Amino acid sequence: MTSSATDQQPAPAARESSLIPVGVLGARGRMGTEVVKAVNDAEDLELVAMVDDGEWLFNVADAGAQVVVDFTRPDVVMDNIRFCIDNNIHCVVGTTGFDEARLATVAEWLEPKPELGVVIAPNFGIGAILLMRFAQEAARFFPSVEVVELHHPNKVDAPSGTAVRTARLVAAARRAAGLPPAPDATTDALPGARGADVEGVPVHAVRLTGLVAHQEVLLGAAGESLTIRHDSFDRASFMPGVLLAVREIGRRPGLTVGIEGFLGL
Amino acid sequence: MTSSATDQQPAPAARESSLIPVGVLGARGRMGTEVVKAVNDAEDLELVAMVDDGEWLFNVADAGAQVVVDFTRPDVVMDNIRFCIDNNIHCVVGTTGFDEARLATVAEWLEPKPELGVVIAPNFGIGAILLMRFAQEAARFFPSVEVVELHHPNKVDAPSGTAVRTARLVAAARRAAGLPPAPDATTDALPGARGADVEGVPVHAVRLTGLVAHQEVLLGAAGESLTIRHDSFDRASFMPGVLLAVREIGRRPGLTVGIEGFLGL
Amino acid sequence: MTSSATDQQPAPAARESSLIPVGVLGARGRMGTEVVKAVNDAEDLELVAMVDDGEWLFNVADAGAQVVVDFTRPDVVMDNIRFCIDNNIHCVVGTTGFDEARLATVAEWLEPKPELGVVIAPNFGIGAILLMRFAQEAARFFPSVEVVELHHPNKVDAPSGTAVRTARLVAAARRAAGLPPAPDATTDALPGARGADVEGVPVHAVRLTGLVAHQEVLLGAAGESLTIRHDSFDRASFMPGVLLAVREIGRRPGLTVGIEGFLGL
Amino acid sequence: MTSSATDQQPAPAARESSLIPVGVLGARGRMGTEVVKAVNDAEDLELVAMVDDGEWLFNVADAGAQVVVDFTRPDVVMDNIRFCIDNNIHCVVGTTGFDEARLATVAEWLEPKPELGVVIAPNFGIGAILLMRFAQEAARFFPSVEVVELHHPNKVDAPSGTAVRTARLVAAARRAAGLPPAPDATTDALPGARGADVEGVPVHAVRLTGLVAHQEVLLGAAGESLTIRHDSFDRASFMPGVLLAVREIGRRPGLTVGIEGFLGL
Repeated sequence: MTSSATDQQPAPAARESSLIPVGVLGARGRMGTEVVKAVNDAEDLELVAMVDDGEWLFNVADAGAQVVVDFTRPDVVMDNIRFCIDNNIHCVVGTTGFDEARLATVAEWLEPKPELGVVIAPNFGIGAILLMRFAQEAARFFPSVEVVELHHPNKVDAPSGTAVRTARLVAAARRAAGLPPAPDATTDALPGARGADVEGVPVHAVRLTGLVAHQEVLLGAAGESLTIRHDSFDRASFMPGVLLAVREIGRRPGLTVGIEGFLGL
Repeated sequence: MTSSATDQQPAPAARESSLIPVGVLGARGRMGTEVVKAVNDAEDLELVAMVDDGEWLFNVADAGAQVVVDFTRPDVVMDNIRFCIDNNIHCVVGTTGFDEARLATVAEWLEPKPELGVVIAPNFGIGAILLMRFAQEAARFFPSVEVVELHHPNKVDAPSGTAVRTARLVAAARRAAGLPPAPDATTDALPGARGADVEGVPVHAVRLTGLVAHQEVLLGAAGESLTIRHDSFDRASFMPGVLLAVREIGRRPGLTVGIEGFLGL
Repeated sequence: MTSSATDQQPAPAARESSLIPVGVLGARGRMGTEVVKAVNDAEDLELVAMVDDGEWLFNVADAGAQVVVDFTRPDVVMDNIRFCIDNNIHCVVGTTGFDEARLATVAEWLEPKPELGVVIAPNFGIGAILLMRFAQEAARFFPSVEVVELHHPNKVDAPSGTAVRTARLVAAARRAAGLPPAPDATTDALPGARGADVEGVPVHAVRLTGLVAHQEVLLGAAGESLTIRHDSFDRASFMPGVLLAVREIGRRPGLTVGIEGFLGL
Repeated sequence: MTSSATDQQPAPAARESSLIPVGVLGARGRMGTEVVKAVNDAEDLELVAMVDDGEWLFNVADAGAQVVVDFTRPDVVMDNIRFCIDNNIHCVVGTTGFDEARLATVAEWLEPKPELGVVIAPNFGIGAILLMRFAQEAARFFPSVEVVELHHPNKVDAPSGTAVRTARLVAAARRAAGLPPAPDATTDALPGARGADVEGVPVHAVRLTGLVAHQEVLLGAAGESLTIRHDSFDRASFMPGVLLAVREIGRRPGLTVGIEGFLGL
C-alpha cells in the first residue's frame, strides 16, 4: 500500500494493526527505488514516508513510521540513525561505510532504549548469505576449497568484498576444524595463475562483459566435489532480505550486524 | 594399520587404546575393498579382520573388533547384524535392502544392549548429504526449485534415488514454510520437457556417456539463483563418511538411519 | 550518430560515404528501442529515420535510408518489406511470423532487383547461433548428447524454440554421421524424467524465477564431456547480430534466412 | 582383434583387407595399455604387435604393422620413428618432448618417402581440441574472454599447457579481428586475483582434491555470455582421437602436428 507522508493524519493509532508502517530514506536512489516498490508490493507493510536528499527527515516521524529503511550515504547515515533512535523508530540500514567505531557509537545510542532495534547489513541478498553459510558449514569436510567470483568489467575491486568475506569465513572454519593447508603440488606457475591468497584460500576474480554478479565456492574431497554457486542478476534480489529485516527488527532489539541471524537457520 | 586376524592374540586389552579395532564384512567386494584401504590408511583405526563370502564370521569377534563395517548383500546382512549384536560389536552398515520391518527388527535386537550402536545408511557420501541438507535449508527462501541429476547411461532408474529423496526433502521444507507451488506459465509443452513431478518439484535426469554421478539443485528467486551441485567421480568419495561412522558409532547407542546426525551440522 | 528524418535534405549524396544511413521500423517497441540505441552508438552507422505505428513509412525513403531494420508485427511486416524493395532499401527483419509461403513471396519480390538484399532472422543473438553451430559440429564425435534449457517461469512453451531447433540440428548431424541412438539403459523411469524426445535428442526445460534465458548442450564420450552453454541476460545481446546484418546486407543480395552465413564461420 | 606378434606367419598378405594392422610401442605404459585395449575393441583394426622396454622393435615390422602408435619416452621416441620410417610404417606419436629441431628432423626423414605419414600430437582428446577450436572461432564476437582450468592438486604446472595454448589461440584470433583489450576497470586488486596474463587473456588455475582435468572458456558480450567447458575424467577419453589418427594417417602423408586437421571441421 502506498500513501504520502501528509495523508497520514489523523493518527498512526488508527492504522490497521497488521500493517507495519515503513519510511524509506534515500527513496529515489537506485536501491531506495527498489525498496519503495517492494514495500508497496508487500501486503503486510505500508509505505508511509519517502525521503531523499534535501527533504525533511521528520516526515518519517510525523508519518508514524515504525521502521525506517536507510540506503543513503556514509556522510548522512549516522545522523539518520540518531534521528530514528530519538524518535523510537527501528532502523534497517544498507548504507555502507561502517567501521568498529561507528558500530560502537550506534550501540551506545541504543543503550537507553532497550526495546529499539537497528540492523546494519553489508549484504541483504539471502542467496549470498546462504552461500556463505553453507560454505562455512561444509568447509571442514573437504581438504580443498577455492572461490571463484565473476562480475561485470566495471567493478574496481578484485576479488569482490563478498568473495573475500566468504574466503575468510571458510578459512576460519578450516582452522577451527584443525584442517591442514589444502594440497597443492604447484611448483611451476605463471604469476597470478593460482589466484589471490585470502588466509590460505585461493580466490579467483573473472571480469566479463555481460555478467552481473556471480560467486562459486568449490569444495573438493577424494572422488567428489561440492559446488555452491550464487548468481545475482538484479538489485531486486536484495529486497526479500530487506523486507525480512523490516518484519523482524521489531523483535530484535539492540544492534545487529548482518541479517544472517534473522534467517532462522 | 593392518594386521591379520590371527596375530591379535595375546589380547585386545594390550592394544594401544587410541586405535579402534575394525572388522570388514564383504571385504573383497567393490565397496569392501575401498573400506579396507581406507581403514588401513587411517591412523586412528586398526583393521583386525576381513571376512568375505564363505569365511567364518566369528573371526571378527575373535580378532577383537569393536566396530564392523558391512557392505555385503541383502540376504546375509541381517544375520551379520545379529551376530555383531550378540558379540557386542558396533555395526556400520552400507548394505541395501532395508525396509521398515527390517529396521524394526534391528531396533528390537538392540533393546537389551543399550550401550551398542548400529547405523544403517543408504548413502555415505558426505557431499551428497550436505547437498540434501543445504537444499532443505534454502528451500523456503526461494519460490522456484528444480533438481537436475546427471549419470552414466548404464543406470536403470531415472531419476536417481538420491534425486528423488532430495526432491522430497525440498518439497517437505516448502510445505512446512507454507510456500505456494512454484510459478510456471507453461501451457504448450512437449511431453517430458518439464521433467518428472516429485511432490511438486520437477526432477530432470540426464544420461551421458562419460559421466559418473552428478546432482544439481537449482533455487530461484527474483533477480537471483542459488545452485548447489555435487559431483561424484569415484567410490573413494564414500570413505570419509564410512570412517566418520566408524569413529562415532561408539558414542551413538541404538539404531541410527543415515549418517546426517553424525556430521554435527 | 542521430539525426531526424527532416534534416536529411539537401541529399543523401552529400553524406560522408563511410556512414550507412539506417531507418528503424517499430522504433518505439522493446526491440526497436534497443536498435535505435545501438545504431546511435555505432560509429559507422547513421540513424536517419525512426518510424512507429501510425507514422509515415515513406519517411525512411525520404531520409535516404539504405538499410531498414524492422521489428514490428506479423500483420504489417509484409507491407514494410514490399515498400522497402520498391524503394531500393535493403531490409533486416527480426519480426516473427514467417512461413514458407511468406518467404517465397519475399523472394519473388526480390527477383527484379538482383542488387537488393533482405535478411529475415528468427534470432539475432550471436551467442545462441554459435552454440547451435558448435553443437552441430561436435555432435558426430560424441555418442551421447542432451539439451537443457532454463528460462524464467513466465515462458509458455517448453522446450524453447531455440532448444528444439538446436536438438534438430544435432539430430541431423548425428544421422549424417551414421551414429546409433545414444546409449540409455533406463528401464525404470518416472514419467518425464528423461525429458522431451526431439528426434532422439532428450531436451529438458527448467523454469525458475530469477532466470532469463539460458541453454546448455551436453555432449558425452568415454571418459569426457563437452558442455556448451549460452546465457542471455538482456535484449542488448541481440544488437551485435542486428548491426552485423545491417553492415553485411549490402553485400548479400537476395533473400537470406538467419544470419549464420554472415558470421564468416 | 588380438593376436601376438609371432602368430602372424604365414604373411600379412593373407590378412583380411579391411583390417588395419597396428603395432603399439610402450604397450605396457599407462597410455599404451589403453591403446591396446582400444585397438582390440575396434572392429576395423587388428593388434599385431605389442612392444615395451627391452623388447625387439623389429617385431612390429615382422608382424606386418602398417601403423604404429608410440606412447614411449622422449629419449627413445626418435629412434622408434626412424625405425618405422625405414620400414615403411606410418606413425601416430603421443610421446612428449618435441621441439622445432626434432620436428624438422622427422620431416627430413620423411622426404624420401612421400607416401608415408607421421602425426605427432600433444593432445589426442577430441573434446579438448574442439574446445580450443570453438574458442578460437567465437573469440572475435566477444569483447571479453577468460580461461578457467581446474585440476587435481598433484599437478605441478599452473596454468595447464592446454589452458595456455587455448589462451594463445584465442589471443591470436582477437588480434586478427582487431579487437581492443578486454574491458577491465580493476584498480584495487589483491595480487593474483585477476589470474595469469597470457597474451592479454586472463587464465585462472584451480587445484582441487577429487577433480581430474577440466577447462572452461568464458566469453562475454553485452547482455550475454558463452561458456565452453571440457571435462576429462579418464585416459579413455584420448582413445577416439588415437584411433582416428590410426585410421587417417594412411591418407595423410608427410608430417602432421596435432590431429585437428583429421577432424574434418
